[in-house]
Amino acid sequence: MPKSKEAARANLENLYRIFTVPEAPDSTLGAIDQAITDDVAGFLGTHIVALERTIEEIEADFLSPEIPEDPTFVSEYTEFVKQKLVAQSVHTAAPGFIGHMTSALPYFMLPLARLMTALNQNLVKVETSKAFTPMERQVLAMLHRLVYRSDAGFYPQWVHNSKHALGAFCSGGTIANITALWVARNRLFAPDGDFKGIAAEGLQRSLQHLKADGLAVLVSRRGHYSLGKAADLLGIGRDNLIKIDTDGDNRIDLELLQQELQRLKSCNIRPLAIVGIAGTTETGNVDPLNSLADIAAEYNCHFHVDAAWGGPILFSENYAPLLSGIERADSVTLDAHKQLYVPMGAGMVVFKDPTALSAIEHHAAYILRLGSKDLGSHTLEGSRPGMAMLVHAGLSIIGRKGYELLIDMGIERARHFAEQLRNHEDFELTSEPELNILTYRYAPQSVRRLMAAMNLEQKCQANLLLDQVNRLIQKDQREAGKTFVSRTRLRSKNYGTKVITVLRVVLANPLTTDAILQSVLKEQVELAGQPEICQLLAKIKQLRFPHAGTDLIAEA
Amino acid sequence: MPKSKEAARANLENLYRIFTVPEAPDSTLGAIDQAITDDVAGFLGTHIVALERTIEEIEADFLSPEIPEDPTFVSEYTEFVKQKLVAQSVHTAAPGFIGHMTSALPYFMLPLARLMTALNQNLVKVETSKAFTPMERQVLAMLHRLVYRSDAGFYPQWVHNSKHALGAFCSGGTIANITALWVARNRLFAPDGDFKGIAAEGLQRSLQHLKADGLAVLVSRRGHYSLGKAADLLGIGRDNLIKIDTDGDNRIDLELLQQELQRLKSCNIRPLAIVGIAGTTETGNVDPLNSLADIAAEYNCHFHVDAAWGGPILFSENYAPLLSGIERADSVTLDAHKQLYVPMGAGMVVFKDPTALSAIEHHAAYILRLGSKDLGSHTLEGSRPGMAMLVHAGLSIIGRKGYELLIDMGIERARHFAEQLRNHEDFELTSEPELNILTYRYAPQSVRRLMAAMNLEQKCQANLLLDQVNRLIQKDQREAGKTFVSRTRLRSKNYGTKVITVLRVVLANPLTTDAILQSVLKEQVELAGQPEICQLLAKIKQLRFPHAGTDLIAEA
Repeated sequence: MPKSKEAARANLENLYRIFTVPEAPDSTLGAIDQAITDDVAGFLGTHIVALERTIEEIEADFLSPEIPEDPTFVSEYTEFVKQKLVAQSVHTAAPGFIGHMTSALPYFMLPLARLMTALNQNLVKVETSKAFTPMERQVLAMLHRLVYRSDAGFYPQWVHNSKHALGAFCSGGTIANITALWVARNRLFAPDGDFKGIAAEGLQRSLQHLKADGLAVLVSRRGHYSLGKAADLLGIGRDNLIKIDTDGDNRIDLELLQQELQRLKSCNIRPLAIVGIAGTTETGNVDPLNSLADIAAEYNCHFHVDAAWGGPILFSENYAPLLSGIERADSVTLDAHKQLYVPMGAGMVVFKDPTALSAIEHHAAYILRLGSKDLGSHTLEGSRPGMAMLVHAGLSIIGRKGYELLIDMGIERARHFAEQLRNHEDFELTSEPELNILTYRYAPQSVRRLMAAMNLEQKCQANLLLDQVNRLIQKDQREAGKTFVSRTRLRSKNYGTKVITVLRVVLANPLTTDAILQSVLKEQVELAGQPEICQLLAKIKQLRFPHAGTDLIAEA
Repeated sequence: MPKSKEAARANLENLYRIFTVPEAPDSTLGAIDQAITDDVAGFLGTHIVALERTIEEIEADFLSPEIPEDPTFVSEYTEFVKQKLVAQSVHTAAPGFIGHMTSALPYFMLPLARLMTALNQNLVKVETSKAFTPMERQVLAMLHRLVYRSDAGFYPQWVHNSKHALGAFCSGGTIANITALWVARNRLFAPDGDFKGIAAEGLQRSLQHLKADGLAVLVSRRGHYSLGKAADLLGIGRDNLIKIDTDGDNRIDLELLQQELQRLKSCNIRPLAIVGIAGTTETGNVDPLNSLADIAAEYNCHFHVDAAWGGPILFSENYAPLLSGIERADSVTLDAHKQLYVPMGAGMVVFKDPTALSAIEHHAAYILRLGSKDLGSHTLEGSRPGMAMLVHAGLSIIGRKGYELLIDMGIERARHFAEQLRNHEDFELTSEPELNILTYRYAPQSVRRLMAAMNLEQKCQANLLLDQVNRLIQKDQREAGKTFVSRTRLRSKNYGTKVITVLRVVLANPLTTDAILQSVLKEQVELAGQPEICQLLAKIKQLRFPHAGTDLIAEA
């Protein structure tokens, strides 16, 4: 055999091996796998180094646009992953990581996720998913029932109906929100006589058909940024996503909403949908959903509720009333990778009317044929993994009561933390936790006292300086890598219409204790002792006493 | 302590356990996990039963819309998963499962997927993904370079540029195609003087601004159904997704395309994009990409190539020329969960112009801030898992040469299989495999001989009967559960403009041998022996000899 042929055959055999010969348990990858199985938290705690490397330093390991020409040994690659990727990733499950919505996962999610990967089902059609299709349909029904509390008698005809779906499973809340508004738009411009509907004829002709000069979507200023994407994508335009100011508690101002709806009417702009928020991303507040449902009914427009964060509050007998009115929504977004504690990549939208998704139904010759139960006929995405299995597992293993405990615990911890912040001399609570999210900022009592006596102009200047202080604290704390809070910019009822920079805390990780919260604050106070921050604080004092000497400032 | 308090504490402790205490290796779930680690193929082979239950029978296990009130033991739930879900799922990795685009996975994907789940990074922002962000940016650069072959000197300024992204990673080809057309639309209606652009002002005003009466997207009749969704979603309308007929080899007819473009011009409808296909879903053919690039340039419109299936052909020195012209596309869709052998949920779109994605850029106050390197500023989706790691692993471990072997093997196997079908007396090849997909149908030589002598009307009748025959064979084979081919409806050059039902085979699983392909055909011949099918075939013969007795028919 000539040398090159021999080499080719050897290559081919190696190639078969990667599809047929399992990783040996004592291989590098096998060992990592075992370590994760034995103790994820331990593995992550050991391997995710706290020592910060800048993003630019990390980039140095990911510069080349060349696809390697030759194969690499799995063990060699695994070593790279361990050193360069795992070591420099974010320990999202750490109980001190309270800045974003990603929390710890229940242990059973890991082996089940591996099973899901091994099965590699594709939920777009029954032919590549079989039992996973009825399972996903059941999950949608369970969440539908959680939201709408329809009679048990309602479900048998809909859950596995080949013509319909009670909702759409998707990769996350953004696709869910887009799907909801897509359905709303297509229902508003449904086929009518010679008009074949917007799905066929497009937006321009649809507006002509309804003799409207435009479309608008209304939501509070706290609406998620995915709604802007939806307005862009659907051809509505971001200018027509009308952001209504909020009251002092980050809830939509109903009077302003009514005014805006009147204005749109006078401009012949059709309100496509009113979006209520059940758990704003930045502050965790809930809009007055019942009032929004009334207004949507009055203006005959779609009522969507973005409950990506807050939906699971419905598990809690104590707190479910906060979401009262959600059952009147035409559509509701839920994110399983948030408070259902499922790994990243699991969102849903459910529709009150089980025929609503017909407005975006589509078919093809090789799959999604009419009459099939293929879920892909009613989803924005095409091929999708079997993530619904992990939601099914969570709902079954944790159960309604388990989720209730988790929800109650988070809300109560947030209220307790708010109380501590209110009493802490160095911090100012900037939004009360209605659910388990709150915001605050570093603003020592001495500074606040000075600010109380300032005129508006001085106050604005002082806030700009405090913004810098809080940005620095957040950045330094993130880079120190021990704990993490996020930051955003918000209006605060104490400071009129100007936005200020605040620190944001999300309390969904059941392993986050009061002691950890204390240590987060302690670290922030320490960070505030840096010369750079002291200088900024001194500048605030100077605003109040522009002609004073340093002594007086120090005293104040 | 009162009983209820005691119970509550016990519940709480159990709840902590699911977040902190790993699955014991000897638990039911631990055992499954170990079995998968030891030998996925063996586990799946043993547990996915071939015995078919109807979808209605399976649904009986997934009927209740009730979320269980109380927690369930993990072991109990795992038993349910094993019996009711795994046993009734589809063995997509089986080498006889050649009907769809999901194939076997390299073994290392499983432990790496578990690591990904354990890390639970969220790629929307650096704060929840850190090293995963540069890693995903590198993957996008690698695929960009594979497609566009830009100079190495091109990349350093773009790969990690905080203002831009060379592409967008997403859950699959559908989102990739939608993203491409979204970018195309927003670039066509870019801000211009007082006009703020379509993202802000919406589609209606944009058309007014360009003084156009509509928008159109052009693609061959073989275009993927996701393009219809895109036309609907983006407000263009499905009627304005113009489907151009194909030539005898399922490639777009360039003359008809030119005619259509002229017609649109005369109607003042703006061609938004021409979409070329590199590997049609149903037949695996490649449009003449260079000619399409010329035409797109002539009409000054966006040129998108849907290479979800065929993109990885570029790894092959032998076959890459089939995709010649792809480097002239403005945007290209690629699916890693197809021929990059990554688990479900990994698509990409890359753009020739590294600033193209600015057209859909978006920001928020708490993440995706201007100047951040957050990937979420340029993606349709929001929160996303770290799937890019598995693409990075595939590219590194398998390497360009490894993928080349896989691609070459699939194409050569398909050509060999086509040869066998051509020589088989019971089958008719209905589309030649340009890549590794082909279609054929059961049509015994005796029947074909009779059909050759039929008039057009009789031929149509005969084809309708053969359609039924092939539907039955496909369905029965799927239900028997040993092997699987899919079916679709296509025009075939032998039968004019009528569509016929054909069987479809995708040869991407490296474990599929010629012997397995033989057994697929053998099973189909056996299934064709059923009385129901014999009757249908007899009816075809009757068409030719309407007045003949049974003897003559049997003879013919």
